[in-house]
Amino acid sequence: MLKEGIIASPGIAIAKAFVYDKVEVEVTEKKVDDPAAEVARLQAALEKSKEQILKIKEKAARDLGEEEAEIFEAHAMVLDDPEFVDSITAEINTNGVNAEFAVKTVTDRFFEMFDMMDDPYFSARAADIRDVGTRVLNNVMGVENVDISCLDEDTIIVADDLAPSDTAQMDKARVKGFATNIGSRTSHTAIMARSLEIPAVLGLGDITAAVKNGDMVVVDGLKGQAVINPTDDELAAYKKQQEDYQAYIRELAELRELEAVTTDGHKVELVGNIGSPNDTDGVHKNGGRGVGLYRTEFLYMNSDTMPDEEKQYEAYKAVIESFNGDPVIIRTLDIGGDKKLPYLPLEEEMNPFLGFRAIRLCFREVDMFKTQLRAILRASAFGNALIMFPMISGVSEVRQAKGILAECMKELDEKGQAYDKNIRVGVMIEIPSAAVTSDIIAKEVDFFSIGTNDLCQYTLAVDRMNQEVSYLYNPLHPAILRLVKTVIDASHAREGLFTGMCGEMAGDPMATLILLGLGMDEFSMSASSIPQVKKIIRSVSYEDARAIAEKALNLETGEEVKEMVQAKIAELGIKIV
Amino acid sequence: MLKEGIIASPGIAIAKAFVYDKVEVEVTEKKVDDPAAEVARLQAALEKSKEQILKIKEKAARDLGEEEAEIFEAHAMVLDDPEFVDSITAEINTNGVNAEFAVKTVTDRFFEMFDMMDDPYFSARAADIRDVGTRVLNNVMGVENVDISCLDEDTIIVADDLAPSDTAQMDKARVKGFATNIGSRTSHTAIMARSLEIPAVLGLGDITAAVKNGDMVVVDGLKGQAVINPTDDELAAYKKQQEDYQAYIRELAELRELEAVTTDGHKVELVGNIGSPNDTDGVHKNGGRGVGLYRTEFLYMNSDTMPDEEKQYEAYKAVIESFNGDPVIIRTLDIGGDKKLPYLPLEEEMNPFLGFRAIRLCFREVDMFKTQLRAILRASAFGNALIMFPMISGVSEVRQAKGILAECMKELDEKGQAYDKNIRVGVMIEIPSAAVTSDIIAKEVDFFSIGTNDLCQYTLAVDRMNQEVSYLYNPLHPAILRLVKTVIDASHAREGLFTGMCGEMAGDPMATLILLGLGMDEFSMSASSIPQVKKIIRSVSYEDARAIAEKALNLETGEEVKEMVQAKIAELGIKIV
Repeated sequence: MLKEGIIASPGIAIAKAFVYDKVEVEVTEKKVDDPAAEVARLQAALEKSKEQILKIKEKAARDLGEEEAEIFEAHAMVLDDPEFVDSITAEINTNGVNAEFAVKTVTDRFFEMFDMMDDPYFSARAADIRDVGTRVLNNVMGVENVDISCLDEDTIIVADDLAPSDTAQMDKARVKGFATNIGSRTSHTAIMARSLEIPAVLGLGDITAAVKNGDMVVVDGLKGQAVINPTDDELAAYKKQQEDYQAYIRELAELRELEAVTTDGHKVELVGNIGSPNDTDGVHKNGGRGVGLYRTEFLYMNSDTMPDEEKQYEAYKAVIESFNGDPVIIRTLDIGGDKKLPYLPLEEEMNPFLGFRAIRLCFREVDMFKTQLRAILRASAFGNALIMFPMISGVSEVRQAKGILAECMKELDEKGQAYDKNIRVGVMIEIPSAAVTSDIIAKEVDFFSIGTNDLCQYTLAVDRMNQEVSYLYNPLHPAILRLVKTVIDASHAREGLFTGMCGEMAGDPMATLILLGLGMDEFSMSASSIPQVKKIIRSVSYEDARAIAEKALNLETGEEVKEMVQAKIAELGIKIV
Repeated sequence: MLKEGIIASPGIAIAKAFVYDKVEVEVTEKKVDDPAAEVARLQAALEKSKEQILKIKEKAARDLGEEEAEIFEAHAMVLDDPEFVDSITAEINTNGVNAEFAVKTVTDRFFEMFDMMDDPYFSARAADIRDVGTRVLNNVMGVENVDISCLDEDTIIVADDLAPSDTAQMDKARVKGFATNIGSRTSHTAIMARSLEIPAVLGLGDITAAVKNGDMVVVDGLKGQAVINPTDDELAAYKKQQEDYQAYIRELAELRELEAVTTDGHKVELVGNIGSPNDTDGVHKNGGRGVGLYRTEFLYMNSDTMPDEEKQYEAYKAVIESFNGDPVIIRTLDIGGDKKLPYLPLEEEMNPFLGFRAIRLCFREVDMFKTQLRAILRASAFGNALIMFPMISGVSEVRQAKGILAECMKELDEKGQAYDKNIRVGVMIEIPSAAVTSDIIAKEVDFFSIGTNDLCQYTLAVDRMNQEVSYLYNPLHPAILRLVKTVIDASHAREGLFTGMCGEMAGDPMATLILLGLGMDEFSMSASSIPQVKKIIRSVSYEDARAIAEKALNLETGEEVKEMVQAKIAELGIKIV
């Protein structure tokens, strides 16, 4: 039996299944006579939960490394969060309900609050809360979790979804793949699978119902499928595919130290997108020679108060130093719209994507903006930093932002603080008007970075998260390719300017040949995509790439462009996984 | 004292104030023992309300004409709407509350439902409900309304806001202007003022508190100000301005039968935007030679069920016939996003402007779409109709829509029903990708019509209803001008194609010279804007307009463009009011 799901981590895993069915506890509301006794039960459960989390954290640090262990630091913080704990106590005392019900009510409320923000970082926070809440609930009710810390043989974990505490306790040596009912590319299960470098297919619907313990399961993280009890012929074919894939991965790994250069010597930069200093390792490991997009939102969103200049300075400095002279493009705060900060209340908006966000918000919250700019400037003394402003719609905003930057420089000068006086300043090109007027904006900046996710959304008038219209979202639409060309040409018409790209398109193998041929100077992407894109660039001549781009510009639809590129890739013998 | 507001109807009015303070009734919830008695009170109030509305309707038909009287037909329909009346009865019976409270609760609920739809038509519907609800409430409570049906002298009505029933009963001969606390250009007060051709300034904040009965008030509907008790010098100046304005209006009226032609003989088409057959009179009266945008949503939104082919056919036919061979461009349904239909449930969307609307929705609701297309086709037999598809993002959608249109033609052929076999088909250019690829789309269509409201919103990534960012909404932004030029050039590169514009920019005097110079073939706007735009076109040579457009394309910001145009308009001696 074959089931279709979402690719969360690539590769092919073949092993027996372990169906990880978590106990679903049922919670009913009961009115209690002695709320104090319920609060005491709660306290005991909180203590027990904290002990468990600390133990798991130690195991995670040992098995997975400090970085992965940090998630349990976050769990411990949930338990220490007075707002969370006090809300549960208040629920018991005010409504006179049982501790189970109070924990469930408050957990659900907090979960929903974070989950509805529709942002990967807040989704992770929501998952933390659900995970901790479930643990506390189990402890209040005396329910034990299923144990997967010690497995006898190679195993595919089949589950509804996996929580951080599940994966932390897992017997890593034996777990070969994940297949789950729900989940997305940004869910914890997906992140964990990529970190463990094991295949994972999520969103399979009812895989837990379809599989029994001990069934043979193939997790096909290349096609996004799970196959239950394959035939001998199928099994043999998957084993062959598994070997081919592993050989290919080894081949990509060998590219790490090589340059991103075409067969006729045209060189481009391949760099990484990062969200925090923790992400720099991945970029180095995959051969990224710098950062094309440092999303500074993370610093703000992972905090209960506005991060001060010192805290930001330390974070930026750590990243800049780790790249040792390679360029690090720091994007100023892109908050607002659907990304909210708990300490910066904003009005609800009818169309957040067309609303008050990023540079627009920074122009109103000038103190916040200047604090960030000073922190970036001071960190720039330690390497090769570049500043990038998001959501620019025209040249006036560039001038305004540069004016504020000049004020910050003056403030640092007055205090005698060091910074890179020649720091390069650029803008995201993610609004159609900025692309159309890039020749005007070029006079004011040192570089462009095309943000294709937003550029596509605005240019095609499509919210790609909206399932009814996401079929229209296509970065290969001729309009997008033409705008990309407009921007690259505008930068190349001026001495010293370059154009990069930091949207998902930059890491999409289907777009590489065209972008290369259009003259893209820098490709910034998730670290794990770098080897594949490098491989493609090293397989083609710049002359051929230019011909392919030229051909793409003359096609009428995104579908035609995709077909043409697929044919070219096959013709060049490039393998894409 | 001077107060700033919103211009809702132009001109200058000078007269004594009448502060029209409606009685604010306070409603408290009371539990009643005899719900049947409350239902009886409600019934009596409903009867009385219906009598009053019929009387007002007769007066309105006599004083204002049949068209304005229709609003009271809508009021009577609210009282006949079983959902409204039954909801009130249910409120009384289920919750055992007093009739007052039930009326208020249900009115508020219905009002909010319509009001939150953020659409001029539904806002009008919401206003109807509030108006009728207030009347019923007053009748339940035995409160009489203030009477303005008989005034002794020329009067400026100062009010919080004016409801249709207020304006209908008003002594039209004596009322010279409106000044209100709240309201927008699309509110009832604004529409009524324009219909009566009296100046109105709305959104003045607290004008009712600042003015006493008998104060002298100037309503300056040119600057959007109200002046309370002006000095003698001020008064003399306003009287002069009033005379100048009236002379100018007479001058514009004389243009009615003249062509929209430049001094060197370049002719363009000036046509009207309409929402229903009722709007055709205004277009004829202002010298519009056809319709550039017939918004068919009105037909769907003013109905409790999907309008059938026959009903639509009649409406389209009436408009087409009234233009007697002049072109009528009928836009297919642009519903969805923020415009909802009660009988077509749609999912809530995070970003409705980037969502499931217009042609995207029609491709899913094919039966609905085909019903409309057949109705338009059949009506096309009676004059010069053109079909226009909205929200096109690329050529694939044009082909798909034309395929469905061809099916409809085949169905009519099979039934032997007449239609214009050479009917011209065009698309709205309101998504940036369509503008950027207009050369590709041009191969499939007979005309373009640029919808600047949406084109600006997407191109600049600005929801213009969002007050935090609306300052960025500027149709004179160089990116918009460049896209407009791209579209016009793409159409003129093909034999027989033309480009029109139907967004607000088409009627904006600040844009006329540039659009003319870019080669715009057809300007479609609110009927009342036609004379002003015609006046501008007749004041300039095409050669000069082209030079102005060329200059605008080389400026860097929308502000610079505006300044340049203002200087040119002054230089040409064109007066704009």
